[in-house]
This record gives sequence, structure tokens and C-alpha cells, in this order.
Amino acid sequence: MATHEPDEAVHAPALCDAALTQAFGLLGKRWNGMLLGALMGGPAGFAELRRALGGISDSVLSERLSELTTADLLIREVDPGPPVGVRYRLAPRGEALVPVLRDLMEWARGNLQPVD
Amino acid sequence: MATHEPDEAVHAPALCDAALTQAFGLLGKRWNGMLLGALMGGPAGFAELRRALGGISDSVLSERLSELTTADLLIREVDPGPPVGVRYRLAPRGEALVPVLRDLMEWARGNLQPVD
Repeated sequence: MATHEPDEAVHAPALCDAALTQAFGLLGKRWNGMLLGALMGGPAGFAELRRALGGISDSVLSERLSELTTADLLIREVDPGPPVGVRYRLAPRGEALVPVLRDLMEWARGNLQPVD
Repeated sequence: MATHEPDEAVHAPALCDAALTQAFGLLGKRWNGMLLGALMGGPAGFAELRRALGGISDSVLSERLSELTTADLLIREVDPGPPVGVRYRLAPRGEALVPVLRDLMEWARGNLQPVD
């Protein structure tokens, strides 16, 4: 770029926010945000989540569920059965994100073009 | 998965939210969320943004800036100079996202482990 940048634009130190980088590092990873959104309505099992996130493979879904569980955003619940049941639900840290996800949806409805 | 999912978990129709899918389709794309976050503090030029988003290549930065400009989230401003200057700023639809980004940062500070 051989272009000039006006002097008043100098605010580089404020440009990079560590918390936002972290948030998008996790939520920006494909499917993670959708997984948390999918669990806003209540706990769900693996097959339900796979259906809700049309197109995700079993291995990627397993990996994402582990990552979000390790980050304390989800809780993996095992119902000893029989038959054994496994469900995922939002952990308190995931619940704390719900109002932000709702605002994000609201923003998307008003500001993004619908996908055909 | 040979496991059983408890019956009360049946709420599949509510699982997939179109607006959230759209929001993460755009913001979940690497760098897009950070670019909007970087412009929260005011307009910035190409080189400043590249510095703020350490690690992005010129071609990817150009592509992301075009995508966000096409989606009406950013405005590309040309100062006729001389020398010619180009700056990017949040468009009204991008400004509308700022409170959500602030809440997301707040959530990340309280709920995500700091990266070493």
C-alpha cells in the first residue's frame, strides 16, 4: 500500500483487545458458537446436536464438544441408564454467554442480509 | 453412538437459529470479529489494522475488509489527498454491533482462561 494514512487515525495501542481475541479464538472456530446457541434451549444429546448443526461430522462434533467442556462452557452428563444416555448442557460460564448470544441474534436479524 | 438420549431432550426444532448461523458465518470467519473490534476505537488505515491483527497477510486483510464493506458493516473512506489516504470505519450496522462486542469482551474476561 503506497497510500497515506491520516495522522488522526493513530490509536494503534487500543486496537488489539486480548479478551476479544480470546473470545473469537474460541467462538470464531467453526461450529463452536452454533453449538452454544443450540444448547440455549436446554440440554441435548450428540445425535440431536449433529442434526441441529447440519453438516458437521461426528469427529468434529466430538472434538468441539470436548473443547467446550474443557473450557468449562459445557457440562457432559451421563445418565447411567440402562440404556446409558449422554447429554450436554451449558455450564455456568456458558449460561453467562446466553444474553450476549441473544443480542447477537437480534443484531443479525436487523443488520445482516438473509441468506437465500 | 449407541447411547440413548433421554426423551425430555427433544427440542430439536428450536436448536438451529438462522440469525445466529448467519452471525457466526460472518463473525466466525477468522479475523472478521477482530477487525470490527479493532475499529471500535475509531477509524484506521490498512497498515494500522495489519499491525493490530498481528499475523494477518495483506491479501487476507484486503479480502476481509471487502467482505465487511460489502455487508455494510464497514465504510471505506478515501481522502483525495495528496497524498491519497484510505481509512476504514464502522458503518451504522457495524456500530450497532459495538455493545454486543463489549459484552462479549466482558464475558471473556470473566469466563475464559487467559492465554499464556
